[in-house]
Amino acid sequence: MCPSQIEYMTLEQQLHEMGVNARKASRALARFSTKQKNSFLLGMADGLEKAIPVVLEANAKDMDGGKNTGLSNALLDRLMLDTKRLTGVVKAIRTVAAFRDPVGRILTTTVRPNGLTIEKIAVPIGVVAIIYESRPNVTADAASLCLKAGNASILRGGKEAIHSNLAIAQALMEGGKAAGLPDSAIQVIPMIDREAIRILTRMDKYIDMIVPRGGHNLIEAVLEGARVPIIKHAAGICHVYVDKKADLGVAEKIAINSKCQRPGVCNAMETLLVHKDVAESFLPKLGEALVQRKVEMRGDAETCRLISSAKEVTEQDWRTEYLDFILSIRVVESLDEAIQHIEEYGSHHSDCIVTKDKIASDRFLREVDSAVVYVNASTRFTDGGEFGMGAEIGISTDKLHARGPMGLDELTTFKYVVHGDGQIRE
Amino acid sequence: MCPSQIEYMTLEQQLHEMGVNARKASRALARFSTKQKNSFLLGMADGLEKAIPVVLEANAKDMDGGKNTGLSNALLDRLMLDTKRLTGVVKAIRTVAAFRDPVGRILTTTVRPNGLTIEKIAVPIGVVAIIYESRPNVTADAASLCLKAGNASILRGGKEAIHSNLAIAQALMEGGKAAGLPDSAIQVIPMIDREAIRILTRMDKYIDMIVPRGGHNLIEAVLEGARVPIIKHAAGICHVYVDKKADLGVAEKIAINSKCQRPGVCNAMETLLVHKDVAESFLPKLGEALVQRKVEMRGDAETCRLISSAKEVTEQDWRTEYLDFILSIRVVESLDEAIQHIEEYGSHHSDCIVTKDKIASDRFLREVDSAVVYVNASTRFTDGGEFGMGAEIGISTDKLHARGPMGLDELTTFKYVVHGDGQIRE
Repeated sequence: MCPSQIEYMTLEQQLHEMGVNARKASRALARFSTKQKNSFLLGMADGLEKAIPVVLEANAKDMDGGKNTGLSNALLDRLMLDTKRLTGVVKAIRTVAAFRDPVGRILTTTVRPNGLTIEKIAVPIGVVAIIYESRPNVTADAASLCLKAGNASILRGGKEAIHSNLAIAQALMEGGKAAGLPDSAIQVIPMIDREAIRILTRMDKYIDMIVPRGGHNLIEAVLEGARVPIIKHAAGICHVYVDKKADLGVAEKIAINSKCQRPGVCNAMETLLVHKDVAESFLPKLGEALVQRKVEMRGDAETCRLISSAKEVTEQDWRTEYLDFILSIRVVESLDEAIQHIEEYGSHHSDCIVTKDKIASDRFLREVDSAVVYVNASTRFTDGGEFGMGAEIGISTDKLHARGPMGLDELTTFKYVVHGDGQIRE
Repeated sequence: MCPSQIEYMTLEQQLHEMGVNARKASRALARFSTKQKNSFLLGMADGLEKAIPVVLEANAKDMDGGKNTGLSNALLDRLMLDTKRLTGVVKAIRTVAAFRDPVGRILTTTVRPNGLTIEKIAVPIGVVAIIYESRPNVTADAASLCLKAGNASILRGGKEAIHSNLAIAQALMEGGKAAGLPDSAIQVIPMIDREAIRILTRMDKYIDMIVPRGGHNLIEAVLEGARVPIIKHAAGICHVYVDKKADLGVAEKIAINSKCQRPGVCNAMETLLVHKDVAESFLPKLGEALVQRKVEMRGDAETCRLISSAKEVTEQDWRTEYLDFILSIRVVESLDEAIQHIEEYGSHHSDCIVTKDKIASDRFLREVDSAVVYVNASTRFTDGGEFGMGAEIGISTDKLHARGPMGLDELTTFKYVVHGDGQIRE
């Protein structure tokens, strides 16, 4: 979109124009072959590679802005791009080009007694909007995954990354267009107004799905008043339950990995539940290991008795996604109490039971209503790459359409294609 | 829910209590075996069969009310129950009991290089709310389909059918409970306040999916301000396009069937598009056949020239779901113009091309973005039964989760079940 054409439009008019253009682009994209889409992706990768100096310049502006507004070091690190990171992003786009095309898969075929052939075929969703925070690499990742699935994308990143996001999108479009990519196939919203989100979520005429990725406030801003279907990527309050029949060596390994391997992500453990029969032999040793890893522990009375460094847990802790080296711990009376705790406080993301008892694990797997349920493995595996999807747009905490890791297949919908030779209904 | 316990609660409190109870019931339902669920269904069928006189009495109240408030004869007919209709409903519940269980299907299995086994398994959605109009048989149909898929249901029918709906639900629950069905597995909202819909659609803590089935006003009332994911069952503005290479005999048969076999349903044709090259040989003959069937025709200038009884069509006609013996007709220059018309005015429900030309049909099937696209068959086949799904909860006009006929499989979601032996992420 050329700024000189839009300067006399309201925010709503500008966004609607973006929507109209995205819809048009999506119709064109749905017609391209796999080969054509892949050549667009390779063009986009080339475009971004060429534009690395330009993107770094834009990123420097965002970094300056971030420092001036007092962003934390963690957030500045997320915002920061360098040649190495951008080269990684370019490589990721080329990897997406190499994936199989999720469009055109024949999901089911039915031949009816009257001779009708009914095929359920994967097709692009159409126009997908992604609303996300800070990390500017999401702009390229999301745009390339959407494009591979034949969708036009409308991207709305955080305002602190606006220069980086716009520069990346421009580079992608320039490279893509050289390979024939239609106009407006990828659009970054240039307006940082918060109001833009509200308008976007009501544009059900032009947008088929919105994927918000972020914290509670972002999800709420998207959800409230929305008319477009939303696939939420919200909090992960993940549990590991150490059953009375657990292999305690395995339990310790899984607990440490689920908490410490990368605490700032949604599939990290936030609460550990331990059966009372093994608490005494398990918790003191685990406590030592976690102290060494500088994990702050917050436990119930029994936990505090067994781990001297643990602080007293509050009701609010059970509901908190720390995303940090902090862990809530509770000693439970039974498997039932563990399941009940997860039902009450969990976010239905990823939960694990450690046990050698098949009856206990079967009950846990069946009764815990989460996107991913594990027996004897770290919750950290909830990830598109680890699931063999190749890539992911995120982790859905919703139940409909996509649940858990959301990969290329989940960026498609389907249509029924019916072949007849004159059948009519009697 | 016992009215004496709730009389001092606000509408919101009452609905929240129903939500809490439905959530509880859904957890219990998720644990039952196929055999147990089927015995609940057979109990429900028995319960309704026994209660036929009670339901007829309740229905008589609704019919009296309907006559007093001046409901049309068509609506009164939809509202009316008699022994034959109720016996049909009872039989339908027994048929649902005989269907295969959609829960527990293993959708995919992946074994990862690290030894993790990842199964994607169909599970109940949880709590499903259905909001519908007039026909009280929907109460039993929706409740039994939801139950078969392991879901608790909250049902909200039209206020004109409130006595019938409550009596049916009570009969189902009594019969079901005799077979062990948990409390609150099926609940009809007893309050007719319009406000109840607004509250319901914001209860995302207790309700996982809402399916509104009805006209524009109902869909809007559900959609506006909703927080619960919605699967819309909205208008069907379906098209038949007669291509220049159509078999005109087949085209006539399909056009008549799509329009006349049952005009009051969403998969009936509302607009006929005819290629200019065949208009002269096709339209006059079709016009005669439709006049005989008392179909009012509204056409563009060329149609009016070829069919003398046709009236002039308006822009608004192209956007109208008549649900009646009325048909809009347009003569188009090309396949592109036909596709463009459907894109502009259609509702992405069911659209058909009649042609012997594979290139034309392939383009139509690919480029028309509708739930069901047909070549050489009546649009009237968009139906769960006709698609071999056994039954349907309705026809989704949304793109995510369910699109087109929504059967038992679409009343389930999935979870990933991961088996490990101590795997951690490196």
